[in-house]
Amino acid sequence: MNDEKHTMEKMISQLTARVEKLEENAPGNKLALGIMSGNLDNTIAAFIISLGAAAYDMEVDLFFTFWGLSALRDPVKNPKKDFLGKMFGTMLPASSKKLPLSQMQMLGIGPKMIRSVMKKHNAKSLEELMSDAAEFGVRIHVCTMSMDVMGIKKEELIDYPYIDFVGVGAFVAMFQEAKQCWFM
Amino acid sequence: MNDEKHTMEKMISQLTARVEKLEENAPGNKLALGIMSGNLDNTIAAFIISLGAAAYDMEVDLFFTFWGLSALRDPVKNPKKDFLGKMFGTMLPASSKKLPLSQMQMLGIGPKMIRSVMKKHNAKSLEELMSDAAEFGVRIHVCTMSMDVMGIKKEELIDYPYIDFVGVGAFVAMFQEAKQCWFM
Amino acid sequence: MNDEKHTMEKMISQLTARVEKLEENAPGNKLALGIMSGNLDNTIAAFIISLGAAAYDMEVDLFFTFWGLSALRDPVKNPKKDFLGKMFGTMLPASSKKLPLSQMQMLGIGPKMIRSVMKKHNAKSLEELMSDAAEFGVRIHVCTMSMDVMGIKKEELIDYPYIDFVGVGAFVAMFQEAKQCWFM
Repeated sequence: MNDEKHTMEKMISQLTARVEKLEENAPGNKLALGIMSGNLDNTIAAFIISLGAAAYDMEVDLFFTFWGLSALRDPVKNPKKDFLGKMFGTMLPASSKKLPLSQMQMLGIGPKMIRSVMKKHNAKSLEELMSDAAEFGVRIHVCTMSMDVMGIKKEELIDYPYIDFVGVGAFVAMFQEAKQCWFM
Repeated sequence: MNDEKHTMEKMISQLTARVEKLEENAPGNKLALGIMSGNLDNTIAAFIISLGAAAYDMEVDLFFTFWGLSALRDPVKNPKKDFLGKMFGTMLPASSKKLPLSQMQMLGIGPKMIRSVMKKHNAKSLEELMSDAAEFGVRIHVCTMSMDVMGIKKEELIDYPYIDFVGVGAFVAMFQEAKQCWFM
Repeated sequence: MNDEKHTMEKMISQLTARVEKLEENAPGNKLALGIMSGNLDNTIAAFIISLGAAAYDMEVDLFFTFWGLSALRDPVKNPKKDFLGKMFGTMLPASSKKLPLSQMQMLGIGPKMIRSVMKKHNAKSLEELMSDAAEFGVRIHVCTMSMDVMGIKKEELIDYPYIDFVGVGAFVAMFQEAKQCWFM
């Protein structure tokens, strides 16, 4: 009888170890999005999905990289830059309000049209969505390598309560823990 | 002895609760794709992957949003629209057959070339892939907000057996349950 | 007492079966990326993320399809091709060094500018990243259907230690096992 008891205890203990490992590797209730294209339509979609996920109690991590950074620029802030930084600064959209569309750009008429038609249908603007995201605790992580390459400085970015500046390792950790991750 | 039995029963019951929680949060054998770009190449890729996944017994949910909606338009159907709806209707591709390429568009020669070369290699056309998807039970979900904004009406969309009209909440539920989700 | 023991054994055995099923369906510590756009910026991002994931002990599978294939072309190799193959061969970028940017292409000045500014900031070039990926065991899978359609031959691709040639089924198997999968 003692033997049998011992066997059962051993089975339970082994099973517990396997369950622990499963729990450790199970994804959190988290969504991770890479914002890279810097297009108005993709960036709007990213924030709408983020707010939808947050409304369903998911934690949301946004990783802004490459062209995506333009959406975070504050056109009023104007820190000192070197020559290349100034050049990129001029070529990249100066703020979320200047983002191009992925198509139907039509020399700048497209984005204005989409914004006006969204307003007409009571859909929130990108800037309102970003402000809602701050309220819902959506986190913004800015790729420091992209900032370096494009000469974008912390001092020229918008004020956002949950913003930090990270490398690719931090992004890997984010998507390793996330239920879903994709790029927009 | 009763004490020991009681302890073991308790351990089994606790372990069962943990396994139940893991089962609850485990993703289904499902693929969720967001179709947003509305490009011929991306849309073809989305359907090829969907059919591949369906062939491996995965359930597939496609969420059509923004430019992606054009692939679902039936050029013959012609419902009444307001001014903005008519304007968008004219500017957006009239059907899957008019989708542009993400590159090498070459004033419309690119898509024709890709279609002709795919046919030459016995690859199915986008329209055949969509018809296969219907046979395999691939579900199409259309973003109602995008329909509103672009003035696209249910009455102008193709007949498809598994189509419904949803908000972003439904999409969040889709990717929360899916093994993988990405945008194309 | 025997009855109780029997009950407990049965519970443990049922629980073990459920844990086994969970283990079977749990994703591996793997990242799967589809490289489709063929843009310099997206392809650089894919390799930086791949190397980041590999550094965190993830296995990485890259699936190259459509325009993505250009990054794997070796401009020196020059196999015989039919008419369509030659035409595509001329129209597609001849190697990773000729990839366009997703924006700010500026007739070819954009990619040169990004490459020069990345070099200035000691960021590795795409070619160096690809060579690092080979060292880290990142696997490259080439979509045979895309090769057929674009007339791209194995003989014109770069030497890479972990390269194979697969259909969509292999890609489905990849993302079914992966923790995350997305397209770039």
